[in-house]
Amino acid sequence: MRSRPLHQTIADHVARQISTGALRPGARVQSVRQLSARFAVSSNTVLHAFATLEALGLVEARPQSGYYVRARASDALPAPTVPQPRTPAVPKADRLPLFIQSMRDPSVVPLAAATMAPELLPAARLNQLLAQAARRSGARGLRLDPLPGYAPLRREIARRLARLGASVTAEDVVTTIGAIEAIHLALRSVTRPGDAVVVESPCYFGVLQLLGELGLRAIEVPADPALGPPVDRIEEAITRRQARACVLVPNFANPLGSLMPVAHKRALVELCTAHDTPIIESDVYGELPFEGERPAPLKAFDEAGIVLHCSSFSKSLAPSFRAGWICPGRFREAVEQRKFIYTVASPTVTQAAIAEFLVSGGYDRHLRAVRRRLRDQVMQTREAIAEHFPDGTRVSNPQGGFLLWVEMPHSAVDALDLQRRALREKISIVPGPMFSARNGFRHCFRLSCGHPWSDALESAIARLARLAAS
Amino acid sequence: MRSRPLHQTIADHVARQISTGALRPGARVQSVRQLSARFAVSSNTVLHAFATLEALGLVEARPQSGYYVRARASDALPAPTVPQPRTPAVPKADRLPLFIQSMRDPSVVPLAAATMAPELLPAARLNQLLAQAARRSGARGLRLDPLPGYAPLRREIARRLARLGASVTAEDVVTTIGAIEAIHLALRSVTRPGDAVVVESPCYFGVLQLLGELGLRAIEVPADPALGPPVDRIEEAITRRQARACVLVPNFANPLGSLMPVAHKRALVELCTAHDTPIIESDVYGELPFEGERPAPLKAFDEAGIVLHCSSFSKSLAPSFRAGWICPGRFREAVEQRKFIYTVASPTVTQAAIAEFLVSGGYDRHLRAVRRRLRDQVMQTREAIAEHFPDGTRVSNPQGGFLLWVEMPHSAVDALDLQRRALREKISIVPGPMFSARNGFRHCFRLSCGHPWSDALESAIARLARLAAS
Repeated sequence: MRSRPLHQTIADHVARQISTGALRPGARVQSVRQLSARFAVSSNTVLHAFATLEALGLVEARPQSGYYVRARASDALPAPTVPQPRTPAVPKADRLPLFIQSMRDPSVVPLAAATMAPELLPAARLNQLLAQAARRSGARGLRLDPLPGYAPLRREIARRLARLGASVTAEDVVTTIGAIEAIHLALRSVTRPGDAVVVESPCYFGVLQLLGELGLRAIEVPADPALGPPVDRIEEAITRRQARACVLVPNFANPLGSLMPVAHKRALVELCTAHDTPIIESDVYGELPFEGERPAPLKAFDEAGIVLHCSSFSKSLAPSFRAGWICPGRFREAVEQRKFIYTVASPTVTQAAIAEFLVSGGYDRHLRAVRRRLRDQVMQTREAIAEHFPDGTRVSNPQGGFLLWVEMPHSAVDALDLQRRALREKISIVPGPMFSARNGFRHCFRLSCGHPWSDALESAIARLARLAAS
Repeated sequence: MRSRPLHQTIADHVARQISTGALRPGARVQSVRQLSARFAVSSNTVLHAFATLEALGLVEARPQSGYYVRARASDALPAPTVPQPRTPAVPKADRLPLFIQSMRDPSVVPLAAATMAPELLPAARLNQLLAQAARRSGARGLRLDPLPGYAPLRREIARRLARLGASVTAEDVVTTIGAIEAIHLALRSVTRPGDAVVVESPCYFGVLQLLGELGLRAIEVPADPALGPPVDRIEEAITRRQARACVLVPNFANPLGSLMPVAHKRALVELCTAHDTPIIESDVYGELPFEGERPAPLKAFDEAGIVLHCSSFSKSLAPSFRAGWICPGRFREAVEQRKFIYTVASPTVTQAAIAEFLVSGGYDRHLRAVRRRLRDQVMQTREAIAEHFPDGTRVSNPQGGFLLWVEMPHSAVDALDLQRRALREKISIVPGPMFSARNGFRHCFRLSCGHPWSDALESAIARLARLAAS
């Protein structure tokens, strides 16, 4: 393993104390002497660490006194409000074309698409593994990889899930085209047109559009910005409104970034097991906590095979590989059959490169490095919002992933207007109504913090704020 | 371009005369002297060519007299009967698991799956291009390739279609996961659940299963084994039975291998234009004629944008790349939106390698070489059927692709029984009932001739015949 520069380790240590609240705004950070003793490094190295923290806007120097945690403007940002429940509806996809258009234009400031900047990804190593896989595979590499998908990758995926407490073997994994194909196959396997399905609200528009395509009604359960949807509201949707399945993102949900507490996860799986209601879990952001261990997926609490665990490497590693998977629990045969019907098989070489990256430990090293960067990017974006947007603006405060949910004061323009006007100035956002089956969230929008902080991003946020006010 | 050995060219010349009927069984082939003069080669080279033709079972030497076209047992094989029309039905996918199981076991003689053997494919070159694409792409290669897909590949696809007479530019192409995703997106874009859709009968089971998933009824139009479905019967389905769309394989259909004459193609597109009925065309076998130019797709006759042209490189080049496309005509926006909803984007690196292979002319060279081999494999399989199956067995006689449709005498066992019993002896076939929404074709099965002829294949056909008789 390549070791991280020492000043980074120290900066990271202090940043963690700040982000977890162990060090509050205005508090004095340990002195250069204390830190150099604790980490057994020179005081120059500690000063380098402080310079890094200063650049991030986390600390400030006070002459003759030391370094203090900066009071950040974003500390005062309130959390978004919890939305009101609405009658179930079949979602529409009519707002998709503008989003697709914004993705196609490389000159647009990319605050819309939920993907990481390529420079945060281990491109050199992955491309090398891809080339290696291509060279090594020979003629056999052109054979269709039969269901349920590339075995070495399935083994690695199962191993990682088992480590988190899930009872999963390679035979329980079916590889897919991204997590979205996994969710599609899952929905197809456990619902019929006309059924009602529980989603959290706000809900990732990709899921809503799938529900719409399949003729399913969305029961939108208002989610707490920090904790996700309350289990008792999900129970009510199942018992009183005949929900046939749930589609949930327990870890760092899109767009809220909420993280379901372990007790909620356990209770939810128990509830759905008791009611025989399948849970389709998307865990695409689960590997991206800012601090500490990655949180467990719902699958870790699943004993009855009621959880259809869906995920991918698109958010955390290689968007262009389109490599995802599903652990369909007891719906395996139905899911496998549908994988054949809709796309037959997934490409082999990309699966092979990722499998090798996982086996070599490269993925875990990459994740350790990128989490810190995402934390900083999210923090800097929050800071810019606090600076430029008016009082009354509310913003999510996620502990993982790289998405922010912004709720503007009601005096601001409609988010759909804001999207159109921002796009004319080459800035892309995703407007709130896309996250609702009933066009709610008209004063909200989602920002992706997948790109390294830059003056261009800062000025894009400033311009957004001006557009919102006008 | 690497030139073909001279003896191959001569053998090919004679084989073509035989397969087109210019030389009939029992006819004398031109003498060694005549051929050596005509091709300006030594008589040894011509003798080498005759040895090749003898090995293929095409000619036989008669002492002191020369070479004669062998009377082949398969010349007496009658064509399959045209099926009776049936009431429209929503197809089921309940026979899929056995097919999937047969694909997974590498020890099974692969007569079921419609894929070419890896040794017929330009693996070394493709793997090299894959490695090159991976190395060259850098960090940008990890970026999600936005809709409508990898531009250089779309350009090449459009260029090839334009050469066949289709009014298509790169902007009219959306890349997909194989042709099957293309057909799915097309069906979704032009039908609603409950609609009736015209298919040819027998019909590729993958299409029937998709119809079943989408709640669509199949109107099965009986197809002529040589010419495909008659246009007047399609017209009747549209005008009298309110068919909302057609899904057809005009070139070397699966399983019959039928080829629609140009006049039929033109009439069909005119008919559907007049009735505003979209045609979903699958052209995956179009590049694989045994002789002459590749036949035109329906898209070449489409002026109104009523044809949704679907195809892939899975049958002709690289099954494991899963690279397909759709030219959706005037349904482009609906199709593009659904591509986003179901799989967001296709993997980049495999598209890049294929694009490069097309640009370099490698694909056309590969096609020229492989067509001859497929012709020989199909011919040899027909010959073995003629030898081992009883009188009254009927077999298709395709002029392209690599599939055969066998109709056994009614005294033979049910094809579903045959499939199960054959699989116990490690031989896979696809039973007739899978090609019908109503379990027809109980005495038919499909054979894939995608693998080089071998003793193992010969003995598998002999065993199949014994199982069918018992």
